[in-house]
Amino acid sequence: MLEVIRELSKKTESKIVMVVLDGVGGLPLEPNGETELASATTPNLDALARESQLGLIELVGAGITPGSGPGHLSLFGYDPLKYTVGRGALSAVGIGVKLNAGDVAVRGNFATLGAGRVVEDRRAGRPSDEENVRVVAKLRAAIPELNGTPVEIYTESEHRFVVVFRATGTPLGANVSDVDPQATGVVPLTAQAQDAASERTAQLVNAFVEKAEQALEGEPQINGVLFRGYSDVPHFPSFEEVYRLNAACIASYPMYKGLAQLVGMQVLEVPGHEDALEEKMQVLEANWDRYDFFFVHIKKTDSTGEDGNFEEKVHKIELFDALLPRIRALNPDVLALVGDHSTPSKLTTHSWHPVPFLIHSNWGRKDLAARFTEEEAQKGSLMLRKGTEVMPLLMANALKLQKYGA
Amino acid sequence: MLEVIRELSKKTESKIVMVVLDGVGGLPLEPNGETELASATTPNLDALARESQLGLIELVGAGITPGSGPGHLSLFGYDPLKYTVGRGALSAVGIGVKLNAGDVAVRGNFATLGAGRVVEDRRAGRPSDEENVRVVAKLRAAIPELNGTPVEIYTESEHRFVVVFRATGTPLGANVSDVDPQATGVVPLTAQAQDAASERTAQLVNAFVEKAEQALEGEPQINGVLFRGYSDVPHFPSFEEVYRLNAACIASYPMYKGLAQLVGMQVLEVPGHEDALEEKMQVLEANWDRYDFFFVHIKKTDSTGEDGNFEEKVHKIELFDALLPRIRALNPDVLALVGDHSTPSKLTTHSWHPVPFLIHSNWGRKDLAARFTEEEAQKGSLMLRKGTEVMPLLMANALKLQKYGA
Repeated sequence: MLEVIRELSKKTESKIVMVVLDGVGGLPLEPNGETELASATTPNLDALARESQLGLIELVGAGITPGSGPGHLSLFGYDPLKYTVGRGALSAVGIGVKLNAGDVAVRGNFATLGAGRVVEDRRAGRPSDEENVRVVAKLRAAIPELNGTPVEIYTESEHRFVVVFRATGTPLGANVSDVDPQATGVVPLTAQAQDAASERTAQLVNAFVEKAEQALEGEPQINGVLFRGYSDVPHFPSFEEVYRLNAACIASYPMYKGLAQLVGMQVLEVPGHEDALEEKMQVLEANWDRYDFFFVHIKKTDSTGEDGNFEEKVHKIELFDALLPRIRALNPDVLALVGDHSTPSKLTTHSWHPVPFLIHSNWGRKDLAARFTEEEAQKGSLMLRKGTEVMPLLMANALKLQKYGA
Repeated sequence: MLEVIRELSKKTESKIVMVVLDGVGGLPLEPNGETELASATTPNLDALARESQLGLIELVGAGITPGSGPGHLSLFGYDPLKYTVGRGALSAVGIGVKLNAGDVAVRGNFATLGAGRVVEDRRAGRPSDEENVRVVAKLRAAIPELNGTPVEIYTESEHRFVVVFRATGTPLGANVSDVDPQATGVVPLTAQAQDAASERTAQLVNAFVEKAEQALEGEPQINGVLFRGYSDVPHFPSFEEVYRLNAACIASYPMYKGLAQLVGMQVLEVPGHEDALEEKMQVLEANWDRYDFFFVHIKKTDSTGEDGNFEEKVHKIELFDALLPRIRALNPDVLALVGDHSTPSKLTTHSWHPVPFLIHSNWGRKDLAARFTEEEAQKGSLMLRKGTEVMPLLMANALKLQKYGA
């Protein structure tokens, strides 16, 4: 389908805004009760819904709970069962590290090891980001390269860091077994290559573990490293290639910026802390004339659901509602509200439940959905869809798709 | 998708009950009238529906009328266009005959042949099961083997029997043309191999036909055999492999037991005659602690539809309604009601119409469907689905599926 869209898409003046309300779908706390969206007071969303087309989406498939990566890829139109991104690559790209063909990125955890290298804490007591930065600096000094392979080490957050092994000549394979034993009271595993192309990567990983433990000897908390999730560089046909869109990403959190970069969006700098809603609006307004597609990511609808805080999730939805008039004031040709998965407060985690979505354009039919809620979306004219159907629908509503066939 | 589910599924304590109401979907006798489900008085089903999520399923595809095999495979999560089971294998497994790799199972009909071997009755006047058993005994004595290939002959019911050719060394192919001419007034066809691997099977079939006619010479009614439906042994990834489920089948009729066995369910013995509703409940209760998935098959909702007996189908639905409190008393984490296809009394046969389905769990959204009927299911939050989506949804509602991707 991506190939079909690529052949049909055309450059026009129209502008699309896709707002991803992360994890926005929910559940009632009691049977037949109201979800977070239905409980929220959302005059602006309600007004928009009455003028829009609504439906529900499943990002990966029926019953499947999407991670953030597959959820967003689906929204961007890439089948998440076909286009997969390893956690290492996602982390690397998310912190702004460009990967080249042949490189391998690895997700690491700082750990606390006891006597005999036994894992005592797989997350080293969740250190502060500052502590992480300090330890990463120490490792950078100790391991600038391994046997001629350049090594780069980056802070992600808390106990998480990323290592990039840069290929020099022969590409590095990423098919390597975990060092992380995923248990305490046992020693870290030795990385093993699962294919010939990954032999050298496994050696690099094991050498890194050894040198890191030497460099961190005597540290009270962080004195070991565990690896899990090795990835080579995924290749995606870009937004420009597929949709002829000059696309911008307005997001605060690394993973979403990383995903946007993987599909070729320009990642715009958003100042401020955490969700930085006001700053995101300013960036959107300031860059309005420069792009024809904006991916705006709102994070806190998910985090509050993961915290199991129903009331706070309701509040974050209301905060977004207050922001909506500023987006509408820009008068995008197509405005879409979507989610990358549900995160019901009741479940305190991502879930499989379909997510409401909304398309506002000049080209909608009468629609019976009166609010942007799960229940109302079911009455909407867009019905139940796969996540990958969102982008073709946005392109169509922006009149950016030519006819298929004569 | 099966492969994805296999990677995501995890073992938990939660229990799933899937009740298949065979052929439960129906049609009104008059335009805009009520279906069998809507006509039935079902207080227990109504109460369950008000607390559950409803939707509609298509087992194979839009407009496609499913046979019982594909219908059930779809419900079990196996794409019926990819996973096919020959009728011969289905019959063999259904009567408890284990097939080994290389064997071929063949469905046979007893027939009445007239002068010059002309087929007079393709079903030999639908003999009793007892008559079938008598004739099968005669054939067993006459044809214990053919040229060194062991031959097994089994009664199925009425005019139906099954022959198993056991491979000794080289596997037998199943690509053989029919002996059954599917018409009267003509002679039986000679079986022809459609590929090299099936040459020997075709010889065995033709030799069997000849020897059987000799053995049955002088019989007034059953004096010939017709073959149609040759199958080798299908291999399915098992319920245990795919879903990590320890699954039990509670069914009375051979075909459903056979299908359950093919996907690795434990087939529990159900005493009693025909649908044996009371006995099925006893078996369910007695085995409650031993399994985490129960497939309970209710047959008569289909048979009465095939008889064109609208009132009787309504009655069978009401009989199931009376049974429902006993299932609910077990308090399964997930209770699902589904059908393998529709069997409208008005059509007296299977049909393509979507079948209502229902999921009861702790993790449902508000649902507007007030009864377990075709019309109400259309208002349900599960919407229109493929049959293969049922199992992922049940697994998700049982919290047995991990997140896909990070």
